[in-house]
Amino acid sequence: MSLRYLTAGESHGPQLTTIIEGLPAGMPLLAEEINQELSRRQKGHGRGRRMQIEKDQAQVLSGVRHGKTLGSPVALVVENKDWTHWTKIMGAEPLEEEVAKEVKRVISRPRPGHADLNGGIKYGHRDLRNVLERSSARETTVRVAVGAVAKSFLAGLGINIVGYVREIGGIVAKDIPVESVKEVAKITEDSPVRCMDKEKEVEMMKAIDDAKENGDSIGGVVEVVVEGMPAGIGSYVHYDRKLDAKIAMAIMSINAFKGVEFGLGFEMARKPGSEVHDEILWDKEKGYTRRTNRLGGFEGGMTTGMPIVVKGVMKPIPTLYKPLQSVDIDSKEPFAASIERSDSCAVPAASVVAEHVVAFELANAIVEQFHSDQYEVLKKQIQEFRQQAREF
Amino acid sequence: MSLRYLTAGESHGPQLTTIIEGLPAGMPLLAEEINQELSRRQKGHGRGRRMQIEKDQAQVLSGVRHGKTLGSPVALVVENKDWTHWTKIMGAEPLEEEVAKEVKRVISRPRPGHADLNGGIKYGHRDLRNVLERSSARETTVRVAVGAVAKSFLAGLGINIVGYVREIGGIVAKDIPVESVKEVAKITEDSPVRCMDKEKEVEMMKAIDDAKENGDSIGGVVEVVVEGMPAGIGSYVHYDRKLDAKIAMAIMSINAFKGVEFGLGFEMARKPGSEVHDEILWDKEKGYTRRTNRLGGFEGGMTTGMPIVVKGVMKPIPTLYKPLQSVDIDSKEPFAASIERSDSCAVPAASVVAEHVVAFELANAIVEQFHSDQYEVLKKQIQEFRQQAREF
Amino acid sequence: MSLRYLTAGESHGPQLTTIIEGLPAGMPLLAEEINQELSRRQKGHGRGRRMQIEKDQAQVLSGVRHGKTLGSPVALVVENKDWTHWTKIMGAEPLEEEVAKEVKRVISRPRPGHADLNGGIKYGHRDLRNVLERSSARETTVRVAVGAVAKSFLAGLGINIVGYVREIGGIVAKDIPVESVKEVAKITEDSPVRCMDKEKEVEMMKAIDDAKENGDSIGGVVEVVVEGMPAGIGSYVHYDRKLDAKIAMAIMSINAFKGVEFGLGFEMARKPGSEVHDEILWDKEKGYTRRTNRLGGFEGGMTTGMPIVVKGVMKPIPTLYKPLQSVDIDSKEPFAASIERSDSCAVPAASVVAEHVVAFELANAIVEQFHSDQYEVLKKQIQEFRQQAREF
Amino acid sequence: MSLRYLTAGESHGPQLTTIIEGLPAGMPLLAEEINQELSRRQKGHGRGRRMQIEKDQAQVLSGVRHGKTLGSPVALVVENKDWTHWTKIMGAEPLEEEVAKEVKRVISRPRPGHADLNGGIKYGHRDLRNVLERSSARETTVRVAVGAVAKSFLAGLGINIVGYVREIGGIVAKDIPVESVKEVAKITEDSPVRCMDKEKEVEMMKAIDDAKENGDSIGGVVEVVVEGMPAGIGSYVHYDRKLDAKIAMAIMSINAFKGVEFGLGFEMARKPGSEVHDEILWDKEKGYTRRTNRLGGFEGGMTTGMPIVVKGVMKPIPTLYKPLQSVDIDSKEPFAASIERSDSCAVPAASVVAEHVVAFELANAIVEQFHSDQYEVLKKQIQEFRQQAREF
Repeated sequence: MSLRYLTAGESHGPQLTTIIEGLPAGMPLLAEEINQELSRRQKGHGRGRRMQIEKDQAQVLSGVRHGKTLGSPVALVVENKDWTHWTKIMGAEPLEEEVAKEVKRVISRPRPGHADLNGGIKYGHRDLRNVLERSSARETTVRVAVGAVAKSFLAGLGINIVGYVREIGGIVAKDIPVESVKEVAKITEDSPVRCMDKEKEVEMMKAIDDAKENGDSIGGVVEVVVEGMPAGIGSYVHYDRKLDAKIAMAIMSINAFKGVEFGLGFEMARKPGSEVHDEILWDKEKGYTRRTNRLGGFEGGMTTGMPIVVKGVMKPIPTLYKPLQSVDIDSKEPFAASIERSDSCAVPAASVVAEHVVAFELANAIVEQFHSDQYEVLKKQIQEFRQQAREF
Repeated sequence: MSLRYLTAGESHGPQLTTIIEGLPAGMPLLAEEINQELSRRQKGHGRGRRMQIEKDQAQVLSGVRHGKTLGSPVALVVENKDWTHWTKIMGAEPLEEEVAKEVKRVISRPRPGHADLNGGIKYGHRDLRNVLERSSARETTVRVAVGAVAKSFLAGLGINIVGYVREIGGIVAKDIPVESVKEVAKITEDSPVRCMDKEKEVEMMKAIDDAKENGDSIGGVVEVVVEGMPAGIGSYVHYDRKLDAKIAMAIMSINAFKGVEFGLGFEMARKPGSEVHDEILWDKEKGYTRRTNRLGGFEGGMTTGMPIVVKGVMKPIPTLYKPLQSVDIDSKEPFAASIERSDSCAVPAASVVAEHVVAFELANAIVEQFHSDQYEVLKKQIQEFRQQAREF
Repeated sequence: MSLRYLTAGESHGPQLTTIIEGLPAGMPLLAEEINQELSRRQKGHGRGRRMQIEKDQAQVLSGVRHGKTLGSPVALVVENKDWTHWTKIMGAEPLEEEVAKEVKRVISRPRPGHADLNGGIKYGHRDLRNVLERSSARETTVRVAVGAVAKSFLAGLGINIVGYVREIGGIVAKDIPVESVKEVAKITEDSPVRCMDKEKEVEMMKAIDDAKENGDSIGGVVEVVVEGMPAGIGSYVHYDRKLDAKIAMAIMSINAFKGVEFGLGFEMARKPGSEVHDEILWDKEKGYTRRTNRLGGFEGGMTTGMPIVVKGVMKPIPTLYKPLQSVDIDSKEPFAASIERSDSCAVPAASVVAEHVVAFELANAIVEQFHSDQYEVLKKQIQEFRQQAREF
Repeated sequence: MSLRYLTAGESHGPQLTTIIEGLPAGMPLLAEEINQELSRRQKGHGRGRRMQIEKDQAQVLSGVRHGKTLGSPVALVVENKDWTHWTKIMGAEPLEEEVAKEVKRVISRPRPGHADLNGGIKYGHRDLRNVLERSSARETTVRVAVGAVAKSFLAGLGINIVGYVREIGGIVAKDIPVESVKEVAKITEDSPVRCMDKEKEVEMMKAIDDAKENGDSIGGVVEVVVEGMPAGIGSYVHYDRKLDAKIAMAIMSINAFKGVEFGLGFEMARKPGSEVHDEILWDKEKGYTRRTNRLGGFEGGMTTGMPIVVKGVMKPIPTLYKPLQSVDIDSKEPFAASIERSDSCAVPAASVVAEHVVAFELANAIVEQFHSDQYEVLKKQIQEFRQQAREF
């Protein structure tokens, strides 16, 4: 059975909750590791006010004892710090009519680019707050928490992962040659826009500031790189076992993401096959490798053993200070779209989210393919499998 | 419960089989409709020999009676016409040692860009034929058959879909303004490269011929457009309910696809929010529409009611006449990668496949959201829902 | 997509958590309703000490606003009241070696009839507390919470459900003719053993007391009855769509349940077909009914529209004061099985749990079959479907 | 990911089809093994005419090469031998109106105890043949085929399974002490009612003959016993991971099954805990065992390593020569229920089906828990796990 999780929580509700089910027992896990990742998600040039007021902290409320997983479901909770201001507006208990009118802050004006209108139509919500509270990217907080657990799972197996920024508002970072994922992680961690290229970093920050000033917003491209995955994870035997397809789904399920590509991606439409495919090499020590990695670590829906390289594109945040036209669902009158507090660019944070949703898919693929009850046994089996692959 | 399907079959085995489960009862379905789609998949400039020898025909072996679905699982079979030549090599029964050696055609040389090596490592297959027989794109035949059923399901609900070619080997078709998906379907059906732009069509064909001559191959970009989907299909409430994410997975699960994007896609990284989001309009007749459709028909993981526009990139077919280096898994000696018969460009066919895998995801999303037992009731409910959306 | 839920929480951890995903929007839901059900689970003659010290209270932490569901996931939490005494023993954070020894209360002695030994072997837990904290029936608290939500869902559709006790320790309640499920609920609610038969009730209580005195425990048979389900829910078209099979799974998944039967159940092995099957009647007002209901409301994996009647057998609670032999996993020496505080009979509480797990399966079956986004639309559609069934 | 399968096929359609997905590669599999099981299903005193005319034969149409699984989906087909007589009545292609009337054999009279009426209401089928063709127990043929593959999977891991008859029409076989599952299989294979007790066998046959003469039918109780399952398969950590619950669902999903119990089953309601639970023993050679096996091989939703013992009750076949009252859905007039050709007792065959559906659940549980790609690796890991369990 697979690793699986559910998340719950509204943006201004009391808390975000997640339950992760299917982890092996005996895996080291600390709240601190999770909190570190949550804090990475909150950083980044261009974030709005909310990021400053709330330092997200995960509580581990089940499934872990004395620093190790039990094999039972892990519940994580991140409390919303400003919940006290929202108890009336967002409370679970019915309100008296009169109070209701005062405090409900009914939203009848759908914002372009958001779930507001479609969600209202779907669920029959005439107060669009009922949509936007859940469709908000605030939910990515717990997806990062889940991914932090997955990262811990992977790290123990020698698999490292990093998400960072390749492009913001049309400014493209240069390719910087590095030794390892760890090095990328280190450099981008120190960058306010999570970018490798110090020069472009400055330009990106300026672009963000400019957008803010114009009441506009900008998007960008993030990349996730994974090192240390064994070859042969995922499968070609059925379409829903292809690991790259699952990763694509995960990336696309992040709020505001509109595209995903592996390796050279869309560039492959413009090159002959001889410049796209990766020649196969073998030596005794490393086993099978590829001379290049244009395919981004996947052939036939399976890992090749080369680094996984996947990019995702994030559209500019749709909550604009520069208003777009919309329609009030009550009056059916046009209006200039309402303004919620907002970031002008969330790409750096989104690169952290992307890293975490990919981490989950990788952990899941390993749990599905190998012994899944005891982390120590799993570690041993992965090691054996790597050796088999080397000698194959 | 969802619509689901399994496929089975090796490229040179006796047949391809699929079972589709979860269709409503009372839906019109003819083998002929399916066969028409299978034939569309087989056309296209640049296809190799195999496409000529085999005209795929689906048999409907359960779940349909007198032209209508029963609600029970639908089994479809497409026989492989040249199976008689492969009974020994691919038979299910054990071979005697001696015969085995003669007929097995053991493959020990993995082709770069294929599942061969990773699949061999994963499943412990030292005869890589055991991998490539299933990883072959031959399987997309039944995925088209499944999609043909889904298309029929959608058509009855007033939802039309088409897949076609936007780009081949770096040659990009111009945007041609059209009235409807049906018009796109009509024009591209007559094009040997499934392209709207008559001028570029010629160039694309030449590019394909050139690649063939060079022993090389080229890829391209396909687009799927869907008209008539009601707003509010899919959901934002949980990451695995986002319909665009599921479509991304479906596209990425097609052999050789390496990227997917919606609407403006990766271009969104280069534009300000004010030029990315689609303003919301309303009028009595049409209900809510968008002034533009840059987001490709999705906001918040849900349909907006505007056309769905999704692109996928296909890498050049990895089976090259111009050989790439690889390693024999028995001798561990390098070699120039073996040549199987092959197409030099499969992008036109892939556009048909993309159309069909998207059709399945849409049908599934509707089955999950509405009454799913009786097609006539479903039709009525979709109609009511459309009206609600209009008046919302 | 289905209704689904995950639960998390150890018996002596800080809290039990559940997330329910897939509920329609606009459904009334109050914490009070859930708490009422939690309190029903805690009652019953023969419960041990723990039931007295803890009055379970559910907090609704997402997915509900002002008394109505949002369509987004519902998170429920039940705090463990005595957690403060267990923070060291069960905490998520690592302990220092020295402290660890003192406080860990390592369990190396598996109790017969519990998950202890098998769970230890499976997950590699040498401290069996790591198993029993999760395998404890304490978890049924949140399963009742989930079921309470499902009951609320069903009630609005005119579907009523009750679980009660048929048999305890060999004492079988007489069949008491009643008008409705609501009447059964009313009568059994006032019974300390949740039984209809006032005479047998006394005997059951005595049997429980006797067992306690003997340091032994007793089991029993519970029954769940459901009124108001429309005909045709579930399906025969695929084995995993049969609703009675899903209910059987749900009942069997309750701690200590070892058997399940519908209608006459195992008695059907002893009767001719003419005394087992239910004759079909029709009249204009009621539509199709059955003269009898020996099959317990199911034919062909689907509801017949007659009451669902399902029984489950619960084994005596395995935690005995009268010890059974076991083996210490460290010393491999035999010992008389350790005693944890315990109830001598949990059958009355188990009947409440059974009611709730069945309620969930029914709600899920309806969500899968009908429009699933708006509760009001669903209500209307169920009504229409009932009418169609009547006139069919 | 799990082992999964879909089945398709109507009772008088051209064929039954199944696709099994998720098997490891390198597992020996022969059509002959499957056919042997299909033939076992067809035997048994009391079967009607159809069993004689059709000797079911499975074709292996994918996923197996030269006697070993490939890891890719396995498609199995069993042709219906009398299809030629049904091509018009059951054909997939539309009929001309006039022909239609002649050949359709419309059924408007639902049989009590069958899916007919509920299925008609659900799917809107006014020709009830559209229901009964799929709800027929004919479908169990491919479920046996699937189970035969699972049995092969289990046999290679040293796990043996048998289904046989405990009770028919109220006649209960005595407990016959035996050495092993293999011995049970041998003895019951030679019995026309698949029963261990030679004396009762005669009585059972007479009961079947008597029922037939009276135009009635009888049911019975079957038992499935499994030897060799390692301890710790399944899990207590989440309700839907409990293996006994999954087995209960599988048994209950067999046509006409109405109850299931493990070990002492419903008897546990009548015994004190001290007579229900199984004491734990340990010795160096065997590791942990139980002094008794009253719980039927499960504690906490996991295997104990003792034999799995599960019983199911089958109701008498509802197709009666002795008619029950029903209602014509067109005229709404009562009638005495129509007679289709029928067996008077299908319990022996059902015991074979039960054996096979349980086999599938066990194979699935193992695939979910251990390395699942290479059968040889899996075998080795199961062996290691057994040793760990012994020494735990």
